Amino acid sequence: MNHVPVAIIGAGPAGLTLAHLLHLQGVESIVFESRTRKDVEETVRAGILEQGTLNLMRETGVGARMEAEADHDEAIDISINNERTRIPLTELTGHKVAIYPQHEYLKDFIAKRIEDGGELLFTTTVDSVENYEGDLAKVTYTEADGSSTTITADYVIAADGSNSPYRKLITEDGGVRARHEYPYAWFGILVEAPKTQKELIYATHPEGFALISTRTDEIQRYYLQCNPDDTPDMWSDDRIWEQLHLRADSPGITVSEGRIFDKAVLRFRSAVTEPMQKGRLFLAGDAAHTVPPTGAKGLNLAVADVAVLAPALVRALKKKDTGLLDSYTSLAVPRIWKAQHFSYWMSSMLHAVPGEDHFATQRRFAELRSVLESQSGQRYLAEQYVGRDLPRFEV
Amino acid sequence: MNHVPVAIIGAGPAGLTLAHLLHLQGVESIVFESRTRKDVEETVRAGILEQGTLNLMRETGVGARMEAEADHDEAIDISINNERTRIPLTELTGHKVAIYPQHEYLKDFIAKRIEDGGELLFTTTVDSVENYEGDLAKVTYTEADGSSTTITADYVIAADGSNSPYRKLITEDGGVRARHEYPYAWFGILVEAPKTQKELIYATHPEGFALISTRTDEIQRYYLQCNPDDTPDMWSDDRIWEQLHLRADSPGITVSEGRIFDKAVLRFRSAVTEPMQKGRLFLAGDAAHTVPPTGAKGLNLAVADVAVLAPALVRALKKKDTGLLDSYTSLAVPRIWKAQHFSYWMSSMLHAVPGEDHFATQRRFAELRSVLESQSGQRYLAEQYVGRDLPRFEV
Ligand SMILES: Cc1cc2nc3c(=O)[nH]c(=O)nc-3n(C[C@H](O)[C@H](O)[C@H](O)COP(=O)(O)OP(=O)(O)OC[C@H]3O[C@@H](n4cnc5c(N)ncnc54)[C@H](O)[C@@H]3O)c2cc1C
Ligand SMILES: Cc1cc2nc3c(=O)[nH]c(=O)nc-3n(C[C@H](O)[C@H](O)[C@H](O)COP(=O)(O)OP(=O)(O)OC[C@H]3O[C@@H](n4cnc5c(N)ncnc54)[C@H](O)[C@@H]3O)c2cc1C
Repeated sequence: MNHVPVAIIGAGPAGLTLAHLLHLQGVESIVFESRTRKDVEETVRAGILEQGTLNLMRETGVGARMEAEADHDEAIDISINNERTRIPLTELTGHKVAIYPQHEYLKDFIAKRIEDGGELLFTTTVDSVENYEGDLAKVTYTEADGSSTTITADYVIAADGSNSPYRKLITEDGGVRARHEYPYAWFGILVEAPKTQKELIYATHPEGFALISTRTDEIQRYYLQCNPDDTPDMWSDDRIWEQLHLRADSPGITVSEGRIFDKAVLRFRSAVTEPMQKGRLFLAGDAAHTVPPTGAKGLNLAVADVAVLAPALVRALKKKDTGLLDSYTSLAVPRIWKAQHFSYWMSSMLHAVPGEDHFATQRRFAELRSVLESQSGQRYLAEQYVGRDLPRFEV
Repeated sequence: MNHVPVAIIGAGPAGLTLAHLLHLQGVESIVFESRTRKDVEETVRAGILEQGTLNLMRETGVGARMEAEADHDEAIDISINNERTRIPLTELTGHKVAIYPQHEYLKDFIAKRIEDGGELLFTTTVDSVENYEGDLAKVTYTEADGSSTTITADYVIAADGSNSPYRKLITEDGGVRARHEYPYAWFGILVEAPKTQKELIYATHPEGFALISTRTDEIQRYYLQCNPDDTPDMWSDDRIWEQLHLRADSPGITVSEGRIFDKAVLRFRSAVTEPMQKGRLFLAGDAAHTVPPTGAKGLNLAVADVAVLAPALVRALKKKDTGLLDSYTSLAVPRIWKAQHFSYWMSSMLHAVPGEDHFATQRRFAELRSVLESQSGQRYLAEQYVGRDLPRFEV
């Protein structure tokens, strides 16, 4: 039976970043990914990278294309009832965020893994993880041709996204999965249109929330608050443009229109799994936790998890010191809860809960105004928006 | 029929402060108060004065005793699970708050009104306000001896507290009363004990909230989160001390004990009335709005209302210019909603909602930690705690 020090399930941001960080410290891994490379490289998901994530890309030699191609935003706008206030992120925090689509991030890490000779198996699905409480874990996977193989691994990382079946191995046996459902969702579209403006606009309006974000000079990503059980056919193009203008236009700014070529409903959920480990099995990224999209923390949290996990695995494998690895959950969880809070806070401030009463609406607007009229309120928001530094550990 | 320019119902902070401010601009008023002077001067209620309220006292010649006797606090402590963090209010904002009981505030304004020869009728209850949409309003009141009198007034101010029947004259006819009920209340006690520490301690704990506040060197005021329908007999002295220590002790700090001589349940409610005026009738203070006690904004909001109303009435009466008076509601309401938000925010962060799930508890603690670990988070909280400047208008 073949052996690998670290088996990583999933070539998302968590899995690929981990494999890269381990490689830099001389620890080899195999990454298994169910989907094709093309599929992984074309699926549009997250779009905002925090400064910690940007620094990691730069410092580990994967940042060149991002530096050249990403939009580096120094501000966001918040619009209340069609009146805009600018939050100057960089002025307030010294940091920027980058608008760089998740699939571009993945392309860069995939290219780097291949360049570095790393094992990265597409169209290969992990079917089971066994004996993770024993001496060596066993990982069984099926390749595109239908062949099934079992290997052993010192450590298995389930970085297989929000539906991870491996999470259950932990939660079924004394773990906790804390959840929160939100009474709204996002209706997201991709549009062939010029940018409405360079920076993102987070708009709130009695009719609901809208987000005007950008992808490239030619393609924009807009979101409208909708009901969680809305389907794309309930949103005609006319209704979309009417609602976008109603909610997000403001003096000097008209949401730019174009051909809509993608419509999808994005659910709002929060979940946190504790612990994130059991024996030789570890959860990272969405496999462990889900955040609603408002705070744009999903990809960044996945990266933060592996910023702890990588040095912990290196110490365990190269120095037989499992101290850091044993503390993985307790080191990762405080940041996860703060990101949950930030996402929940931004969501609650900006969305109209269906049927909310006059008190709730007015209090919400008063909160937004309290934040926006105070420099420290703006800075408190901006700090969380640009994100905290990644944890750093010597290996 | 006798005539008065301004008839004021209620000798609480709103009514007495208004009468004083009007007098300084040469406008006379009568203040009617149902209760005895002794009762008014002995009822323990609010205890924290914002900087705007302090400035008003100083600038209008009623601040001498407050300056000498009040505790001027430069910080508050927030304790999470028995771990304290200091919020240095003055360092962060340049301002202090004063711990000066509401009844001491009232004593000073009553003394001043009497010294100035103002009309202030105790044990006199206003029974009706009529014709407030006509040329002159009519106010009918009953004195202690049972005699009933009707006078006319240019303007009538209902500053008669949270059960004001005059509010209905406005809400029954196109006005809005926005309300919010909270799933918790405060069990408040007065204790003969030395101070636990100089500054207030806001403590949150899985068992609930506790507030360690002070009155004098010998008398302290403590609060424990309780259920809204708890009655004082459900809280034995033993239970009180056990819960206070459990929730609010922290390294170096033990809640000081002594004889408990007052127990009362304080309900948590938010309410805002809009508009706050109709014809010649105006609402001020608790008659218009109620805040839960967490933000300590009740008395201060009452003072802020009359800081708009006083110059508006002076302009209307002395210059026949009703512009400011017509705008009273729209000038007063934004501050009221921000204070509602602040009180709601502090309440939500610090109280355990009965039966709240793991997500809610952890998110709440993550929010508190996000605020406390960030200087801008602390400053954003501190700014709202010390309060905004009072509105100022030339007369
Ligand atoms: C539409 C959308 C918009 C978003 N916007 C943002 C944003 O703006 N900012 C942000 O930070 N976050 C955003 N997010 C969240 C972000 O995309 C996720 O948090 C992030 O992808 C998590 O990375 P991950 O590596 O943990 O999981 P994933 O990216 O989900 O990767 C898991 C991978 O594992 C593979 N896999 C699953 N099971 C197996 C198996 N058994 N064997 C082999 N492979 C397997 C999957 O095919 C997948 O490729 C968004 C998400 C969506 C859906
Ligand atoms: C226990 C407690 C603790 C509090 N703690 C704080 C705190 O820490 N900080 C803070 O800022 N706020 C606090 N508050 C709130 C604060 O006390 C009130 O917001 C404040 O008293 C409002 O002032 P007011 O003048 O509007 O009304 P009130 O103080 O209620 O005065 C109204 C007056 O009108 C009189 N009246 C009523 N009807 C008539 C009538 N028909 N004719 C004649 N007179 C009438 C009443 O007898 C009363 O004296 C607290 C309240 C309570 C109850």
